[in-house]
Amino acid sequence: MGGVGAIPVRIDQALTSGLTGNGRPVLAELAALAERLAVTGASGAIDLQALPLSPADLEWLRETLGRGEVSTTIEAAGPSSIEETGFAGVWWITHRNASGQIVAELIEVATVPEIVAATRDEVGASAARLAAIVGESVPSGKETRA
Amino acid sequence: MGGVGAIPVRIDQALTSGLTGNGRPVLAELAALAERLAVTGASGAIDLQALPLSPADLEWLRETLGRGEVSTTIEAAGPSSIEETGFAGVWWITHRNASGQIVAELIEVATVPEIVAATRDEVGASAARLAAIVGESVPSGKETRA
Repeated sequence: MGGVGAIPVRIDQALTSGLTGNGRPVLAELAALAERLAVTGASGAIDLQALPLSPADLEWLRETLGRGEVSTTIEAAGPSSIEETGFAGVWWITHRNASGQIVAELIEVATVPEIVAATRDEVGASAARLAAIVGESVPSGKETRA
Repeated sequence: MGGVGAIPVRIDQALTSGLTGNGRPVLAELAALAERLAVTGASGAIDLQALPLSPADLEWLRETLGRGEVSTTIEAAGPSSIEETGFAGVWWITHRNASGQIVAELIEVATVPEIVAATRDEVGASAARLAAIVGESVPSGKETRA
């Protein structure tokens, strides 16, 4: 585009790369949340859409956090992905709508991402349904369907 | 193959379909484990490889349990898959070696599969590493790598 020669170098570089410097406080907050989780067991999250982060900032954060071994997808109304970062307990979560557009993006700091866990109430309902099927099913010879 | 006409019908059908009837006790055990989890919070698991289940029994179990919304993969030495069944808190877990062969297959009844969770100790290590990176990183202008 030209014409940016008079702008101080630091801002010139920020314009070029798209980095605003707002990624670093996110890392600091993640460090604090991880420390709190390790000490107290309390989880937390950072809503990335509520922060003034450029696409380049987000890319820098993802690269800095790296990738872990665990990757989860949830197929609800729209798909969600929950990816472990290179830091255990730090999860990058992206929720999309049915059209594939990102509707929420956050980093959760928890031993397990909240959305993955079943609740005890849900498990109780599972127990009742399983018991009902056990009472009905006869899995010998021709299969019967519950 | 022929020659099975003299064998009682029930066994004949079992030979034909491959179903042994051993799937049903697994369902009953899952119902009991889910009930215990809902009431006490204690999780449990069934090692499918330790039971006399035929491929048809396993197929019947999978179809009966159905599929849930949550699917997790873990890329360690070999890939593992952790699939929520249609019953919240009941997870079908398959571990494979680097060649793709199944080395363990189990059904875990837990709010969260144990293998997915980060430990508090691991999170503490993450906190320390994050704090170290925050002290080093300068995410403005040209990117620096930790």
